[in-house]
Amino acid sequence: MTPISLDSLNTGSDADFTTALGDIFEHSSWVAQEAAKKRPFASIKDLHDAMMAVLRAAPAATQLALVKAHPDLAGKAARSGTMTADSISEQGSVGLDRLTDAEYARFTRLNDAYQAKFGIPFIVCVRRHTKDSILNEFERRLAHDSANAINTAIGEIGRITALRLDARVTAKEQLKVTGRLSTHVLDTHGGAPAEGIPIELWELSRDGADRLVARTVSNKDGRTDAPLIGGRPLPIGTYELRFATAAYYRARGVALAEPAYLDVVPIRFSIAEPEGHYHVPLVMTPWSYSTYRGS
Amino acid sequence: MTPISLDSLNTGSDADFTTALGDIFEHSSWVAQEAAKKRPFASIKDLHDAMMAVLRAAPAATQLALVKAHPDLAGKAARSGTMTADSISEQGSVGLDRLTDAEYARFTRLNDAYQAKFGIPFIVCVRRHTKDSILNEFERRLAHDSANAINTAIGEIGRITALRLDARVTAKEQLKVTGRLSTHVLDTHGGAPAEGIPIELWELSRDGADRLVARTVSNKDGRTDAPLIGGRPLPIGTYELRFATAAYYRARGVALAEPAYLDVVPIRFSIAEPEGHYHVPLVMTPWSYSTYRGS
Amino acid sequence: MTPISLDSLNTGSDADFTTALGDIFEHSSWVAQEAAKKRPFASIKDLHDAMMAVLRAAPAATQLALVKAHPDLAGKAARSGTMTADSISEQGSVGLDRLTDAEYARFTRLNDAYQAKFGIPFIVCVRRHTKDSILNEFERRLAHDSANAINTAIGEIGRITALRLDARVTAKEQLKVTGRLSTHVLDTHGGAPAEGIPIELWELSRDGADRLVARTVSNKDGRTDAPLIGGRPLPIGTYELRFATAAYYRARGVALAEPAYLDVVPIRFSIAEPEGHYHVPLVMTPWSYSTYRGS
Amino acid sequence: MTPISLDSLNTGSDADFTTALGDIFEHSSWVAQEAAKKRPFASIKDLHDAMMAVLRAAPAATQLALVKAHPDLAGKAARSGTMTADSISEQGSVGLDRLTDAEYARFTRLNDAYQAKFGIPFIVCVRRHTKDSILNEFERRLAHDSANAINTAIGEIGRITALRLDARVTAKEQLKVTGRLSTHVLDTHGGAPAEGIPIELWELSRDGADRLVARTVSNKDGRTDAPLIGGRPLPIGTYELRFATAAYYRARGVALAEPAYLDVVPIRFSIAEPEGHYHVPLVMTPWSYSTYRGS
Repeated sequence: MTPISLDSLNTGSDADFTTALGDIFEHSSWVAQEAAKKRPFASIKDLHDAMMAVLRAAPAATQLALVKAHPDLAGKAARSGTMTADSISEQGSVGLDRLTDAEYARFTRLNDAYQAKFGIPFIVCVRRHTKDSILNEFERRLAHDSANAINTAIGEIGRITALRLDARVTAKEQLKVTGRLSTHVLDTHGGAPAEGIPIELWELSRDGADRLVARTVSNKDGRTDAPLIGGRPLPIGTYELRFATAAYYRARGVALAEPAYLDVVPIRFSIAEPEGHYHVPLVMTPWSYSTYRGS
Repeated sequence: MTPISLDSLNTGSDADFTTALGDIFEHSSWVAQEAAKKRPFASIKDLHDAMMAVLRAAPAATQLALVKAHPDLAGKAARSGTMTADSISEQGSVGLDRLTDAEYARFTRLNDAYQAKFGIPFIVCVRRHTKDSILNEFERRLAHDSANAINTAIGEIGRITALRLDARVTAKEQLKVTGRLSTHVLDTHGGAPAEGIPIELWELSRDGADRLVARTVSNKDGRTDAPLIGGRPLPIGTYELRFATAAYYRARGVALAEPAYLDVVPIRFSIAEPEGHYHVPLVMTPWSYSTYRGS
Repeated sequence: MTPISLDSLNTGSDADFTTALGDIFEHSSWVAQEAAKKRPFASIKDLHDAMMAVLRAAPAATQLALVKAHPDLAGKAARSGTMTADSISEQGSVGLDRLTDAEYARFTRLNDAYQAKFGIPFIVCVRRHTKDSILNEFERRLAHDSANAINTAIGEIGRITALRLDARVTAKEQLKVTGRLSTHVLDTHGGAPAEGIPIELWELSRDGADRLVARTVSNKDGRTDAPLIGGRPLPIGTYELRFATAAYYRARGVALAEPAYLDVVPIRFSIAEPEGHYHVPLVMTPWSYSTYRGS
Repeated sequence: MTPISLDSLNTGSDADFTTALGDIFEHSSWVAQEAAKKRPFASIKDLHDAMMAVLRAAPAATQLALVKAHPDLAGKAARSGTMTADSISEQGSVGLDRLTDAEYARFTRLNDAYQAKFGIPFIVCVRRHTKDSILNEFERRLAHDSANAINTAIGEIGRITALRLDARVTAKEQLKVTGRLSTHVLDTHGGAPAEGIPIELWELSRDGADRLVARTVSNKDGRTDAPLIGGRPLPIGTYELRFATAAYYRARGVALAEPAYLDVVPIRFSIAEPEGHYHVPLVMTPWSYSTYRGS
């Protein structure tokens, strides 16, 4: 769907507004309908706050209905093709549309247990997660969530709709819903940024099926031309950056043993704040390296 | 076999000497028989040098026979139980007695190719190797070895017999045929050596089947009570030390995110000198670390 | 003098051009006069190249006269007030107008020796130097310069006039005649940039009279709001950055010994390329630190 | 005085014992006389504990007399030559016998103020201090000590006599009254310990008069043959280790700028525990270095 400017939303009719934003909240255009009356909005944040206020002011039964309107994660709706376009894209982003049968069975078990315990589907903003962190979250919330399952669900709906809104509406200032992962390679053997070092970013999985997220090469300043992950929330999870340092030094004529003491240097780290900036530098020689959480 | 002192070897009869050391060179007790005449020896090194001199002074046909007396690596002899005790133990040390069918087929192919090209079995001192480095060596020598295949074989026989001799004979000074791998963990968040940090050493394999070599915990000085590998040659290969840093810091009450920025820190390095000392320290905080080839 | 735009210089009369730039070359307005005929210039660099070409194309005697028109460094002209405004400002920038009697005597000795050996004054672009590096340069050139004293002098005049021109003329692109010194403090004990750490930059002198160059405090990102040195060439010399790390950690409630293991951390480094970017970061805990030439 | 063995002390007469140890406590042989009755002692520690128990069990007036028997620090007794041999040696070790007139005046002022406030001389175990840390201690105790000036004095007498006893008596195990300062230089540009790097240890003083404590060169293992300070308590104070890294790299043929980015690397650190082990390593390249409190 083409993005629409905040100005147009502020100046159009209530009906136009509801048409444009009716699907931000899953199967619940009434949220947009109510929010239209609060116009104009000074920012996308104000707009989103207003929509969330509409949801929070709604009767408990209405809220519950909205929560229940969400599909199961990796559930039957996904397999039978009855999800909304946004849900399809969101669940696909984390690989929930490409599960093995065992994984599908596992998600089904967890979904059923959650439904049985709380009477609502398990809702999570999947764009902020990896498959592993969704499973962690599922288990954590199954164990602890009883008192505030609805509140937690509405909080996650807030995150989901913020991302949808940020993608749908343009304004002077977008929402702060994205993070950034970057690196920087300093060659302290040569005394300069390391140019041309092959870099891979892998997402690690507790079942051992690592997934290549990005493959790139450092530029003249020892950085990458684009962030390793950017323009979206950083999925919570564990990653490994792999730097092909021996290839780099051999290409520069440095004599190394066979095999080289350091060949591929892995830096394993985890992301816990999807909206944060993670800077993971490598300061290296053929016989040493260091890393730190940078800025 | 019980070790025997260099003194006894020097003072016993020629026959005793040959009985004691006749199997150091594979199926070739004549080497010991000749060497007995050169007694006394001032050191195990002198003894080994003398035995190698006997071999090098022998007629080419005799040398060739000795070389051919060696079993194939991971070959039919291993499967049919016709190897010498030393060869069984040596090939077992690197897992050549536990190959998958595919690996066995691969070794057979390489053995056959080597035999076809050079007319002798492929000989390598397996205690200085991992399965991966043997395969690398196999391929390297198949490509390049033509001119000096016999010389290379005799060089490896020198290494094999040095290790056998060092295990068989005691003297004031043993041969320098072993290496040492050690680590040291400094906690620069707490300002002291890291005590109680779980450490694993893994041998990495290019087929992805990593093998746990050692599992230990750092002591009060941040070191391990015993070397990670010691008292033997360090097998040429690629390894990963894995330090459970988040477990360590959580146990000390340091607040970490969930998941922690650094959980298990892997240090991947390669060993190229089996008789060397590799010291691989970790200097760490919850948000940074460094390592270097130490001493 | 008010800067003038390259456009005005290109479009004005020859006389205007000479008036505007006649003093760029010391007491030698003829350089501007000749260069005016080559207009228009696409950039300040083209303009400077053209003026240098005029100088290099001039007869040897004319070149020599221009060289001789330069005042001695820290010489009698300085004391008697007969230098050009630019020379006064340049020599003052490095403290040549505030010498002790012993230093003045030393410069006089060196000037006299240089005049005696080469028949010209010692010329150096002082804005690229500290007092120490000028003395080093003086001694180096006194020992080695014979063959090309004039060439070296003209090279330095090129640097002096580039700086004067860059300050006098505005255009889309200025000359690359400035460098930058920056720092960045990462607190890997706290896991974030170090905000509020007191930082001093000292110029070290071989006579032991260190000179405070800058005093500042790191900002929220662990950097300084302005470069430690910027907008000018970095004077060749040896410096010390001093970071008050114990004060920083005590203010954050970290328990330290009395005296703290690390109190003020000094990083001593030298600048050899006045037009370079020197980035000197500090990655620190209360018990460790590292630094490297960054980018 | 020749050391005497604990055995001899245990088996000799009471009179011999008192003769041997009568001067351990300043002008107070009665402490040894009483302690002789508690023989035999299993260790020097037991002997010292027994002597301190004698002192603590004495009447308050007797304790006070012993405290008052101590000379002022850097006081008139020192200038007039009326101190005991031990006191002369101890005060000399920290330079209190070589004060400038201004320093002497300052100590006199502090001594007088202390005497006026507490009625006893200021007592401190000078071998555990630098001149700076004595002055710090003086000011600290002048401000805070009122309630327990006598207790603090007796505690310091315990430290003084432990050192005297440890030097006087030999046994299987000496007292733990000494510390150790060591370093280790790793060259991660070359990938090996740095051999032959010139190292200086300076004691820094707040009046700017730095004092050279040791000058040495690293050995083949990158360490120093002897500890930088050893066999005595480490004087509390601030120090700088200075490593001549550019000289080291130039000698190895590494091309460096002129001046080198890093020439002499200073590591400034403080010692707060005289009986501790301070290990201050340097891990370096021509363009980077790190240090940490090691073990």
